[in-house]
Amino acid sequence: MGKIGHKTEIRVIYADTDAMSVVYHSNYFKWFEVGRTELLRSIGFPYSRLEQEGVRLPVIECGCKYIKPAVYDDLLAITTVIKEVKAASFVIEYEICRKDTGERLVTGFTRHAVTNHDLKPLRFKAAAPELYNLLFNNDESRSPE
Amino acid sequence: MGKIGHKTEIRVIYADTDAMSVVYHSNYFKWFEVGRTELLRSIGFPYSRLEQEGVRLPVIECGCKYIKPAVYDDLLAITTVIKEVKAASFVIEYEICRKDTGERLVTGFTRHAVTNHDLKPLRFKAAAPELYNLLFNNDESRSPE
Amino acid sequence: MGKIGHKTEIRVIYADTDAMSVVYHSNYFKWFEVGRTELLRSIGFPYSRLEQEGVRLPVIECGCKYIKPAVYDDLLAITTVIKEVKAASFVIEYEICRKDTGERLVTGFTRHAVTNHDLKPLRFKAAAPELYNLLFNNDESRSPE
Amino acid sequence: MGKIGHKTEIRVIYADTDAMSVVYHSNYFKWFEVGRTELLRSIGFPYSRLEQEGVRLPVIECGCKYIKPAVYDDLLAITTVIKEVKAASFVIEYEICRKDTGERLVTGFTRHAVTNHDLKPLRFKAAAPELYNLLFNNDESRSPE
Repeated sequence: MGKIGHKTEIRVIYADTDAMSVVYHSNYFKWFEVGRTELLRSIGFPYSRLEQEGVRLPVIECGCKYIKPAVYDDLLAITTVIKEVKAASFVIEYEICRKDTGERLVTGFTRHAVTNHDLKPLRFKAAAPELYNLLFNNDESRSPE
Repeated sequence: MGKIGHKTEIRVIYADTDAMSVVYHSNYFKWFEVGRTELLRSIGFPYSRLEQEGVRLPVIECGCKYIKPAVYDDLLAITTVIKEVKAASFVIEYEICRKDTGERLVTGFTRHAVTNHDLKPLRFKAAAPELYNLLFNNDESRSPE
Repeated sequence: MGKIGHKTEIRVIYADTDAMSVVYHSNYFKWFEVGRTELLRSIGFPYSRLEQEGVRLPVIECGCKYIKPAVYDDLLAITTVIKEVKAASFVIEYEICRKDTGERLVTGFTRHAVTNHDLKPLRFKAAAPELYNLLFNNDESRSPE
Repeated sequence: MGKIGHKTEIRVIYADTDAMSVVYHSNYFKWFEVGRTELLRSIGFPYSRLEQEGVRLPVIECGCKYIKPAVYDDLLAITTVIKEVKAASFVIEYEICRKDTGERLVTGFTRHAVTNHDLKPLRFKAAAPELYNLLFNNDESRSPE
């Protein structure tokens, strides 16, 4: 795991579930958004501030593996970690566990471009230098392991 | 029923259902949107064209009554009717039935303001005169019954 | 306002918004669910426990009025109050305000039936006597005003 | 591309979009569900029939790459193809294009387990022999290329 990470929690409601009595698979991506939003806020770069500075971080790729299903009223812990900080993109990894038992339910990732308001690509370092430096300097995935 | 109406269909998917094995109640409002979008298209005023002309029709009130639940894979018929065309707002009524049996599942409505891009209220007749005239002249709910 | 009420909070994410740059109108109904779930938990009747006892509380009617839009990253306060406790149904009222300014954004309600697992109606008092008594005895909407 | 494929269409509504004025990334997974549901129906194995036979096909992994954004009112073509048919799982691949221009917007996949009603894994061939044979015998991804 890289150094820049964050933990937050969400509670499963009926709206999140489907007729298989488990959380519908695409809803975990919304919780990944909660995870990265709170991570950015926790390191001093709330996404709403990036927006005001004309920067967007659209998802250009995502994926998720489902290990065990979450069900109604589960309290879930979302762990969010920054990875692969590059010139024009970066990756965020997520792990969602059941809070009480610690069981791992899903793992996933999102890859983000750095763009302007019209979704045109920007150089990350030029567009948001402080954020870039913070993420890049703490990206352990750069190092040999 | 007023004169300006439209029928369209949708198919229930797992994403629409919840752990009670029925459609989650708020999802019918999405299908109401499908109904009014296709109604507007059918009378020659696709919403995307209204948008280009600087007009928005935000929902300012809505309601729904649930008679019988829709379930996974149901084919649903959405009937959409324009009502109560006023100076700065109008109402759209909806009925959703199971296509094969004709059973009525839900009835509902949305009330819309007429606004500009920044959601500031506009006079309907001035902002979209052609649409206003078409709806107003065919609004049977104006008449005594 | 009745005596049985609860306050909780949610944060608006991108998934909740639409291309008008405001929260999509039907998403408030999901937050109403958060409100009533936490209210029931706070008075000792978590919905998951009612489920285990074979009781369901499906929404049979709902409505919402939109006063001002919520936008991305708003922190919202949801106030939830029980009303109109009857033999086979009850009403829950909601108010959602912006946390920092206190501005009221939406008001709404849901009406619930009391049913078994197969959504067959039950007498509230017989099906869940403790919850019924607690709600009924604290329902100020019964009293003349 | 394998031999077993299907094309269907969907129309983007406001509910699908977000405040970046494009479709929210996780909503494409709902359209992947539409694609595979209609593919299964088209080859004579509607998912609702599999359910009645006690078989479920839960998503155990998924992924999506975003090439260009879809926007409000776009008419989208979903192409769905079966791949990697194995003893206890298979893969479905998707491509979503703008109908009018043919531009490719996203590509993605879902990997499915074959399980019983309680989500316990089953041998695909034993649980749904007709479907297994049909998919397996037409899975070109088995062949060397």
